[in-house]
Amino acid sequence: MPFELAQRGDTQEENNVFQPKFDEKGLVTAVVCDSETNEVIMLAYMNAESLEKTIITGEAHYWSRSRKELWHKGATSGNVQKVVEIRTDCDQDAVLLKVQVTGAQASCHTGRVSCFYRSVKKDGDKFTLKFDDRAPKFDPASVYKK
Amino acid sequence: MPFELAQRGDTQEENNVFQPKFDEKGLVTAVVCDSETNEVIMLAYMNAESLEKTIITGEAHYWSRSRKELWHKGATSGNVQKVVEIRTDCDQDAVLLKVQVTGAQASCHTGRVSCFYRSVKKDGDKFTLKFDDRAPKFDPASVYKK
Repeated sequence: MPFELAQRGDTQEENNVFQPKFDEKGLVTAVVCDSETNEVIMLAYMNAESLEKTIITGEAHYWSRSRKELWHKGATSGNVQKVVEIRTDCDQDAVLLKVQVTGAQASCHTGRVSCFYRSVKKDGDKFTLKFDDRAPKFDPASVYKK
Repeated sequence: MPFELAQRGDTQEENNVFQPKFDEKGLVTAVVCDSETNEVIMLAYMNAESLEKTIITGEAHYWSRSRKELWHKGATSGNVQKVVEIRTDCDQDAVLLKVQVTGAQASCHTGRVSCFYRSVKKDGDKFTLKFDDRAPKFDPASVYKK
């Protein structure tokens, strides 16, 4: 494996050892942003295998918590994420991927560029969601056939 | 509470109801980015109380998993995060905060602008971390007094 596993008591903040700190489920959180605009496009999770595959292949791999399987992002939709840079945070329990998305250049399973396509707006005492104006890039019904 | 709690079976993708999906620990993941540059500066977690406080006060509040308490970001360091926008993702188990940081304009407890201050570099068969050139904005030892 091209990285070390964190041991209890290690300090991850000020050294140059890549030592991802997987949680009790064996996962780190992956924030994914567009390498050109910095726009956050999705959030996913990686186990050691998917992190290693991401590093070695240069294409984003995640752990699908719903399907409980290794997930090569874009394998079905064609929207592969080419990794331009990987960063990690102070305590190394999260990574930040800067990516270029291929295909329809959409990363959300709804067909949109980003999973964060709604903002929270105040509506009296309640808060509602406002959709962005950007149209989806693909039709999920035609891409994800049953 | 200014939002509804998700019920099992609800679909969160295509409606305008803000219905955050808290996990089994009662948390959603919060990705935090600079509202001007889009740079991702940290990742944290929110329970319902911290999310509500964030919305109502316009300043980021999190749930500190290590201290197990409500955490008004910047209360000690002075680096308060003013919330410009809140977004949520397709399945509403994460939020994206776009913020302006006050004080020293640093969000990492190490004194740096961002917690993601190291990139992963290939070094033979191993991967090591390379520090950014940006110097810390404050000295944590003088800010976080024991």
